[in-house]
Amino acid sequence: MTISSKLASRIRLPSIMSKVMPAEATVPFFKNGDYVGWSGFTAVGSPKVVPKAIAKHVRDNNLQGQMRFELYVGASATAPIEDEWAELDMIHRRSPHQVARQVNKNINNGKTLFFDKHLSMWSQDLSYGFYTLNRPDGRNVIDTAIIEATAITEDGQLIPGASVGASPELMEMADKIIIEVNTAIPSLEGLHDIYDIGLPPHRKPIPITSVEQRIGTVGIPFDPSKVVAIVESTVPDITGSVAEPDAVSKGIASNLIEFLHHEVKHGRLPENLLPLQSGIGNIANAVIAGLSDANFKDLTVWTEVLQDSFLDFFDSGSLDFASATSIRLSDECFERFFKGWDDYHKKIILRSQQMSNNPEIIRRLGCIAMNTPVEVDIYAHANSTNVMGSRMLNGLGGSGDFLRNSKYSIMHTPSYRPSKTDPYGISCIVPFSSHIDQTEHDLDVVVTEQGLADVRGLAPRERSRKIIDNCAHPEYRPILHEYVDRAESYCQKRGMLHEPHIIRDAFKMHVNLEDNGTMRLKSWD
Amino acid sequence: MTISSKLASRIRLPSIMSKVMPAEATVPFFKNGDYVGWSGFTAVGSPKVVPKAIAKHVRDNNLQGQMRFELYVGASATAPIEDEWAELDMIHRRSPHQVARQVNKNINNGKTLFFDKHLSMWSQDLSYGFYTLNRPDGRNVIDTAIIEATAITEDGQLIPGASVGASPELMEMADKIIIEVNTAIPSLEGLHDIYDIGLPPHRKPIPITSVEQRIGTVGIPFDPSKVVAIVESTVPDITGSVAEPDAVSKGIASNLIEFLHHEVKHGRLPENLLPLQSGIGNIANAVIAGLSDANFKDLTVWTEVLQDSFLDFFDSGSLDFASATSIRLSDECFERFFKGWDDYHKKIILRSQQMSNNPEIIRRLGCIAMNTPVEVDIYAHANSTNVMGSRMLNGLGGSGDFLRNSKYSIMHTPSYRPSKTDPYGISCIVPFSSHIDQTEHDLDVVVTEQGLADVRGLAPRERSRKIIDNCAHPEYRPILHEYVDRAESYCQKRGMLHEPHIIRDAFKMHVNLEDNGTMRLKSWD
Repeated sequence: MTISSKLASRIRLPSIMSKVMPAEATVPFFKNGDYVGWSGFTAVGSPKVVPKAIAKHVRDNNLQGQMRFELYVGASATAPIEDEWAELDMIHRRSPHQVARQVNKNINNGKTLFFDKHLSMWSQDLSYGFYTLNRPDGRNVIDTAIIEATAITEDGQLIPGASVGASPELMEMADKIIIEVNTAIPSLEGLHDIYDIGLPPHRKPIPITSVEQRIGTVGIPFDPSKVVAIVESTVPDITGSVAEPDAVSKGIASNLIEFLHHEVKHGRLPENLLPLQSGIGNIANAVIAGLSDANFKDLTVWTEVLQDSFLDFFDSGSLDFASATSIRLSDECFERFFKGWDDYHKKIILRSQQMSNNPEIIRRLGCIAMNTPVEVDIYAHANSTNVMGSRMLNGLGGSGDFLRNSKYSIMHTPSYRPSKTDPYGISCIVPFSSHIDQTEHDLDVVVTEQGLADVRGLAPRERSRKIIDNCAHPEYRPILHEYVDRAESYCQKRGMLHEPHIIRDAFKMHVNLEDNGTMRLKSWD
Repeated sequence: MTISSKLASRIRLPSIMSKVMPAEATVPFFKNGDYVGWSGFTAVGSPKVVPKAIAKHVRDNNLQGQMRFELYVGASATAPIEDEWAELDMIHRRSPHQVARQVNKNINNGKTLFFDKHLSMWSQDLSYGFYTLNRPDGRNVIDTAIIEATAITEDGQLIPGASVGASPELMEMADKIIIEVNTAIPSLEGLHDIYDIGLPPHRKPIPITSVEQRIGTVGIPFDPSKVVAIVESTVPDITGSVAEPDAVSKGIASNLIEFLHHEVKHGRLPENLLPLQSGIGNIANAVIAGLSDANFKDLTVWTEVLQDSFLDFFDSGSLDFASATSIRLSDECFERFFKGWDDYHKKIILRSQQMSNNPEIIRRLGCIAMNTPVEVDIYAHANSTNVMGSRMLNGLGGSGDFLRNSKYSIMHTPSYRPSKTDPYGISCIVPFSSHIDQTEHDLDVVVTEQGLADVRGLAPRERSRKIIDNCAHPEYRPILHEYVDRAESYCQKRGMLHEPHIIRDAFKMHVNLEDNGTMRLKSWD
């Protein structure tokens, strides 16, 4: 076929040029039951045209439910593309993170089996063969990896797009590799740093001691003989835009920044803090925006994903360097990023998620981790994933990697959310988290727009008071205090006063939400 | 005072010889409200005669409740000594692990505030100043560290006893150091390896790549000017003996060993496995005993504590080397260990708990972690600490350090325990763990005497069936299956089928135990 000059300029390895084909020609490489890996992380850097071609094949031939895959992506992929697969019932199993509407629906209606795992561990466990255990042929392989690239070097390295994620491990494990070269965005050569951690018992220390350190190659080395197809993609990353910070997010950010100043003042943090990790979403965005205005200097970031607010953070002069595995920007900010490439790309490194989220590095650097939960309980356990203990939102992500291993483990949340019938219907501070992803042993600080609870070194009975008084919404403080009082009295009598619960009442606020549309319980009796 | 020749031979630093005094002379170094650190880990290597002298002072002068301390010990200390403090209400706050009867009672009756934390993190967070935040004087210090030694070298290093624990950090932070030189046991010089990990932002990679590697000094370097007293102790470590493995423990061990063979056969483990971590208690002891008879060769151990069964493990020829932070043996086995010192000590290294439990090393080595929970739920969350969500047992210990970071994360438990009125009254497999220390994202395998559930890569709805069918006691299988069926039907209707729970019924088996003395629920209605 004719190869566009744009595409030709991106492929510097002549030996694989013969594999260029249109997307629809890749359909025969896929069969029902295959283990399929996609590149991508937080909706960027994932393949677009090949998955679309397979979806078209399924739709055109009425193969719904007859072409189903074990779909493994480092984190979330491009939502509309993944949703097309979900609508056609093409996803039998999905791991470890997703945001697409229909994918999520299928997980919660039972069509798709989903499991989430700490993102640093996920690609490692994949390499260990833990997720291919049940292949009928007993082989530890992914049948096909579809990987987005922005270039291929003369020595056989794939230059990823706006994320690295689990691409190195997926390519290593794949029988067949399909490369989508995206010519709609510039080549991002020079943005990535790819390093192979190896497997036990042969692992060595990871030599990173600062965020800006490069220790690997510019691209992902791969075996060209595994490449069965190269397809040109002219579809840019599709991301939503992030809402402007509202009063609640700004309140949270302000409480958090006050705390960081306090820690500097008491000598527990240096003036330029320590490498920051910030989760995804509107609160995280507001926190980064707040930090841009807070007059800190020489800050660094060691995180998983860079959102829009990071461009302002760089431009403010406060941020020196950021390391992540993905740069997920809105259309406008991607444009700004590409325009400012010469400047920005020297201050950013994208690494694999096994590196960006690695406990070894996070602990060594002493990161400051900040993430948003579904709910936090009065003893500082947090739910990051399942509403009412059951309904999956997006998945664990890197929250556990960062909250467990950072020097500071901070959860920020609004104190309440509206339910369908009550503007204060859901308290984000509850007696017992309906699902627990982060334990009481993993959180140092809980912060809401109401205030901040520093629970370091506190016993559970001290934590409960501090979290309720400082973080819960005033509507819920008396309700929660009453639970604590009753639980302490109940447990005192029974000699079990360490972390007082009345186990039959622990979820009563959740039950009231199910039954009456609000957690504002009329009575604990 | 007269210095015994035994004591004199252990102190090779003449400049501190003048600090030798009888235990009762140390009383004036302590005042109400002090932050006090003890050496010790799993009941060995902790001070005995100084704490006893202070207790005597409190008793003789009726100072109960007027001499209370913030007591920090790496893990548990010698039980009878700690209990004396608890009986005299001398412990205001205690962290992070304890086994003594009265100490535990005070935690659960509200006299003592207790918090537990991952043991690798605890001494780090102590250094960070996280546990001295609320000192009235705002200083980041421990007032007094009482540290057991078996010798002091000419260049100012303290040679610990049978554990290292958090002694390096406690000595570093202490205003005053009191050393108890234990002359009832031999000098253990050559057993330890002490290495300072440092603090962010100046940390370097920890250079350990194999269990037998030495990277530090033979003892803990300290500042002699901080030593205010040296006291001779002639009290050996006081430990209980471990029960012989029973049929249930043997059944668990046998299922586990079969699994390890299976993993070797499928190429996911090398023939000599990977470094083993084994928790404390009778099941752990049975597992180690089972491994001694399982014909593995060239095994290694990277763990927290070595129990009695490790001596047989060495003698069987299967075990080459073990690294830990404590060697907690019964009297008979200590005698055997000291007799065989020339041989054993070359095969054992004791390190600080920040090293033995370090995520960086555990993950690098790819350990096999095996620990006993209170209960595990059908989706693979585990309770390691609080009975009925409230009553503290011993503390988290290193379970989270190892289960999160190892290559294999295994929990072993009997499928049931007796309640007061029903020999099968407590199921160790429950719908929802009444406390969660290890999340579903941290466990690979659950094993009971009934069988083994390998949940790697499974979605929650697959896990529940596997755990119930393979691990629950037959008495509880129908009860648990009924919960799952009802929960799936309930959540199907509500579009929340990822991890199905009926939140109002999730603790119903626990409530039935409280109300009727058994978890054998008559009906879910």
